[in-house]
Amino acid sequence: MNRIAITGAGGRMGKALIDAILLNGGAELTVALERPESSLIGVDSGELAGVGKNGVLVASSIIDVADQFDVLIDFSVPSATAANAAFCAAHNKKMVIGTTGLDAEQLAQVSTTAASSAICMASNFSTGVNLCFKLAELAAKVLADETDIEILEAHHRHKVDAPSGTALSLGESVAAAVGRDLKKVAVYGREGQTGARDHETIGFATVRGGDIVGDHTVLFAGEGERVEITHKASSRLAFARGAVRAAQWLGQKDSGLFDMQDVLGLK
Amino acid sequence: MNRIAITGAGGRMGKALIDAILLNGGAELTVALERPESSLIGVDSGELAGVGKNGVLVASSIIDVADQFDVLIDFSVPSATAANAAFCAAHNKKMVIGTTGLDAEQLAQVSTTAASSAICMASNFSTGVNLCFKLAELAAKVLADETDIEILEAHHRHKVDAPSGTALSLGESVAAAVGRDLKKVAVYGREGQTGARDHETIGFATVRGGDIVGDHTVLFAGEGERVEITHKASSRLAFARGAVRAAQWLGQKDSGLFDMQDVLGLK
Amino acid sequence: MNRIAITGAGGRMGKALIDAILLNGGAELTVALERPESSLIGVDSGELAGVGKNGVLVASSIIDVADQFDVLIDFSVPSATAANAAFCAAHNKKMVIGTTGLDAEQLAQVSTTAASSAICMASNFSTGVNLCFKLAELAAKVLADETDIEILEAHHRHKVDAPSGTALSLGESVAAAVGRDLKKVAVYGREGQTGARDHETIGFATVRGGDIVGDHTVLFAGEGERVEITHKASSRLAFARGAVRAAQWLGQKDSGLFDMQDVLGLK
Amino acid sequence: MNRIAITGAGGRMGKALIDAILLNGGAELTVALERPESSLIGVDSGELAGVGKNGVLVASSIIDVADQFDVLIDFSVPSATAANAAFCAAHNKKMVIGTTGLDAEQLAQVSTTAASSAICMASNFSTGVNLCFKLAELAAKVLADETDIEILEAHHRHKVDAPSGTALSLGESVAAAVGRDLKKVAVYGREGQTGARDHETIGFATVRGGDIVGDHTVLFAGEGERVEITHKASSRLAFARGAVRAAQWLGQKDSGLFDMQDVLGLK
Repeated sequence: MNRIAITGAGGRMGKALIDAILLNGGAELTVALERPESSLIGVDSGELAGVGKNGVLVASSIIDVADQFDVLIDFSVPSATAANAAFCAAHNKKMVIGTTGLDAEQLAQVSTTAASSAICMASNFSTGVNLCFKLAELAAKVLADETDIEILEAHHRHKVDAPSGTALSLGESVAAAVGRDLKKVAVYGREGQTGARDHETIGFATVRGGDIVGDHTVLFAGEGERVEITHKASSRLAFARGAVRAAQWLGQKDSGLFDMQDVLGLK
Repeated sequence: MNRIAITGAGGRMGKALIDAILLNGGAELTVALERPESSLIGVDSGELAGVGKNGVLVASSIIDVADQFDVLIDFSVPSATAANAAFCAAHNKKMVIGTTGLDAEQLAQVSTTAASSAICMASNFSTGVNLCFKLAELAAKVLADETDIEILEAHHRHKVDAPSGTALSLGESVAAAVGRDLKKVAVYGREGQTGARDHETIGFATVRGGDIVGDHTVLFAGEGERVEITHKASSRLAFARGAVRAAQWLGQKDSGLFDMQDVLGLK
Repeated sequence: MNRIAITGAGGRMGKALIDAILLNGGAELTVALERPESSLIGVDSGELAGVGKNGVLVASSIIDVADQFDVLIDFSVPSATAANAAFCAAHNKKMVIGTTGLDAEQLAQVSTTAASSAICMASNFSTGVNLCFKLAELAAKVLADETDIEILEAHHRHKVDAPSGTALSLGESVAAAVGRDLKKVAVYGREGQTGARDHETIGFATVRGGDIVGDHTVLFAGEGERVEITHKASSRLAFARGAVRAAQWLGQKDSGLFDMQDVLGLK
Repeated sequence: MNRIAITGAGGRMGKALIDAILLNGGAELTVALERPESSLIGVDSGELAGVGKNGVLVASSIIDVADQFDVLIDFSVPSATAANAAFCAAHNKKMVIGTTGLDAEQLAQVSTTAASSAICMASNFSTGVNLCFKLAELAAKVLADETDIEILEAHHRHKVDAPSGTALSLGESVAAAVGRDLKKVAVYGREGQTGARDHETIGFATVRGGDIVGDHTVLFAGEGERVEITHKASSRLAFARGAVRAAQWLGQKDSGLFDMQDVLGLK
C-alpha cells in the first residue's frame, strides 16, 4: 500500500485529495500537512474533509513525519514546493507536483530531485483532460482535411480570461497535429459580414455564466457528419483523482521527471 | 379539405412543400406552379419531389388554375409575390407568404390584399423556432435576475454573416423581456483578459462548420443550475411544415395579416 | 430586510441555505438552528458554511430566538417540521417547507398554520426545474401533433430508482397537457425488434454514472427540426436559492399555502 | 486522377456518391451504372444528382464501359455485387463494396477477387464512425477503472430495432478493450427500483423520434469529470465521402481485402 502525504490539508484541494485517496483502493493517506500557523493543526483530517474520522491528525512539519510516507502530493505555492523538493531529494521521497508558477531556480530544484527520486509534474492532473488531448490529436489527423475544426468552452462568470488555457492548449495540440500554426488560424469571435468560413481556421466559441466548472468540446464538422470530443469538469475531485493515480503510478519508477501523459500511457 | 397551391414547385422549397402537404393529413396539393420558361412545366409534381406520382402537373400560370385552390403558399421573389397578392385580392384567395425582401410598395400590396383576404406572412415559418422565442421570453422573465444569459448558434461553413439572424432575434426578444437594450449588452466574442462577466451582458457564441443546417441554444446559467432552450433544424421541411400549418390555420380567418405567433396561439 | 431562520445549519442543505441567503441581496440570515445535542451549537454559522464569519451563532432552540426572525426555512424531518409549524402558527411566523414525507396529521398542522401565516411548500425548490415544467407544457401544446416526445435524464451512480421522480413528473405534466395517460404511453427501454415508433408514446432514456447531480431534457423531435428543453443541476445551491426566493416572495403574503409555481408566477 | 464507376446511380446512395466524388478533388466520376430496365439510362448523371451537368450519361452494362474506370464503388444487392466482383477479377479493377448481406458463396467471390485486385469492404463507410470506434477504445483503456460507461443513441421514428447496430458495435468494442463481455454487462433500460449502478455494466439509452439520422455518444462518467465521444450523422453523404476516400486509398494497393480502419490508418 502506497503511503501518501498531502500539503494544504485544510484547503479545497487538500480536502479533495483526502476524498480521492479514499476512492482509490490502493492508496493510503498517512500524513496531512498544514502551515504551522493554521488553527487546524491536530484536528482529524478525515473529519475536516467531511469523509469521516480517519485517525490522521493534521501536522505542521514534514520533518516530523519523514518516515511516515512514500509519496508527497503537493498543490501549494512555488517556494514551499521547492523546499519540499529539497527535502524529498534528501529523504528519497517521490513527489506529485501540481503547484504552478515555479521560477527557473525552483524548477531546477525539481529537476535535481528528479535525478534521484521519481516526480510527476503537470499543469492539469485531470485524467479526462489529458486523454482528450490525445483523442483530439488523433481525430485531427484523420478528419482535418474534410472537416472544419471548432473549439467550444464554457466556464463560470468569475473567470477573467478567454478562451480558457485548456481550450487554447487543445487548439495548439490540434493545430500541431495537422501542421497549422494556431496563431495564424485561430478565430476568437465572429460578428457581422464574416464571409464563408476559411477551411484552415480553428474557431473558438466561449461561454461564460453561472457556476460552470469547465466544459470543453473539440468539434469536427464535415459534410454529412460531425465528431465531438467533450470534457466536462464538475469538481476538483477530477484533479485530485488524477494526482492520486499519478502517485500510484510513481510506485513503479525509481527516478525521473514525468507528466500525466506518461502516467496514462498516452505518449 | 383545404386546397393548396404552391409557387416554385421545382425548387428546393417547392419540393419540401409538396412533401409537407402530404405529411399534413388535412391539406391537399391541387396546384403546383413554376415559371413559364421552366422545362418542368407539365411534369408530375409528386415525382418531381420524389414522393411518388400525385397527378398534379406543374402549371405555368396562376390565372389558368384560379378555381382550383383556396390558399397560395408563396416562397418566391418580391415582384412575383406582389403580383400574386394582387391576383389573390381580385380572386379572394388566402396566402401564406415566405418571400423576404419586399419593398414598401410591395408590402402595401400585401396589406391591401389582407383587407379582404387572410394572409400569414413571416420571416421564419419553423414552428419550433417560433415556439422557442416564446419559451426564451418566459424563461428570461423568471430567471434573468439570478442567471447569466448566453446564446449559442452553429451553422454550416458557407454562412457569410454572424451571429445568425435568428440568434440576434432571440437576443432581442430575451433582452426586451427583461428590459435590456441588446445593442448595449451584446458581447460577440471574448479574447484575452476580459475580466469577470458583467451580469447584464448577453453573450453570443458562434460556431461555423460542415453542413450544420442551424442549431440555436439560449442558455440561462445560474448558481447550482442551468436551463437551456435548444432548437436544431435538420432540413427545410421544418419551414415547409410550418407554412402548411399556417395555410390550414387561415381556413378559420376571413381577412387580416397574421404571423406564425398568431398561428401557434403564442400571442 | 427579510430576517430568515434556518434549521439544520450544520447539514449540507443548511450550508447551502447560508450561502444562498448571502447571494440574495434582500434577505438576511438572523437565526441558524441545530439539534440541541449537536457539537456545533455556539459556532459561527458563516464559518461553518465556509463563507466567512457572519456573527450568527448556531442556536439550539427556536423558542429562544422567536423575536429574531420573520420566515423559517425548514428542510428537516417531518416530526420537527410539524412542531415548527405549530410554533410558527403561535408566533405568526412565515415558513418555507422543503421537508418531504409528512403524514396526514403533519400535513394538517401545516394547513392549520397556513390559515394564519403564509407558507410555501414544495417537493422541489429549484427555480429552473419549476420553470421547465411550464416550458415543457407549453411546448407540448404547440408541438405534440407533429413531433415525438422523449425524456432523457442522467444521474449519479448511487441513484437507486429510475427514471428519476423529476423525469416522471415531466412526463406526467407533458402527457396531461396533450390529453395522454402516461401510464399507457410511457416506454422505459428499447431492445430488439421494437418496430417503428408509435407517435403517442413518450420514451424515457436513462443514464447512470459518475457524480452527475441531475440532468433532464424533454425532446420534441419532428420532421426537419427538434426542440429541447434542458435542466442541469450542479449543486444543491439551486434548491437553496429557490427556497430563499420563496422566503422573499412570502413577504407580500399574509396567509395561505403556496408552492413554487406561485412564487414564480407560472400559474 | 482516379477514375471511378458507381452502381445504382439513380438511387439515393448513388446520388450521394456523385456529390461526394465532386467534393473530393482527386477523384473523377467516369461511369454511372443503373439496371438495364431503368428509365434513367442515358440521362446526365450530374443533373440526376442535382449537382449540374457532368457529361457522364447513365449506362446499363459494366461490360460496355470496362476500359473507362479504375475503381468500382458498389452499394447494391449481394447477387449484383458478386457478379461485379467476378467481372473486376477478370478485368483487374479495384472495388469499394458497401453492399451488405452477402452469403458465404458471394463472400468467397470477393475473397477470390481480392487475391488479384485491391478491395475495401465495410459495413459502415463513415470516416467519423470508424474513428469513433478507435477513440472509444482508447478512452475505455484509460478511463474504464474510474468511470461508468454509457452509450446513448438517437434515431428517427421509423427505425425498427434498438439499440442501433452501431451502438451495439461501440459497446462491443469498448467492452473488448477492457476485458468485459457485452452480453453479460449490457443494460438496455432502467425502470423502478434498480439499485445503485454496478460499475462493470455498460448502459444503453435509446431515443427514437422525428427524422434524426443517427446520433451516438459514448459517455465515461467519473467523480469530478465526464468524457463524451459523439458522432452525429446528418446525411448519407458521410458514407459516400468515406467510400470515395477508400477508393482513392486503394490507388496505392495492388491486391488484398481491406476495411475502413485500414483506409484511415487506425489499425
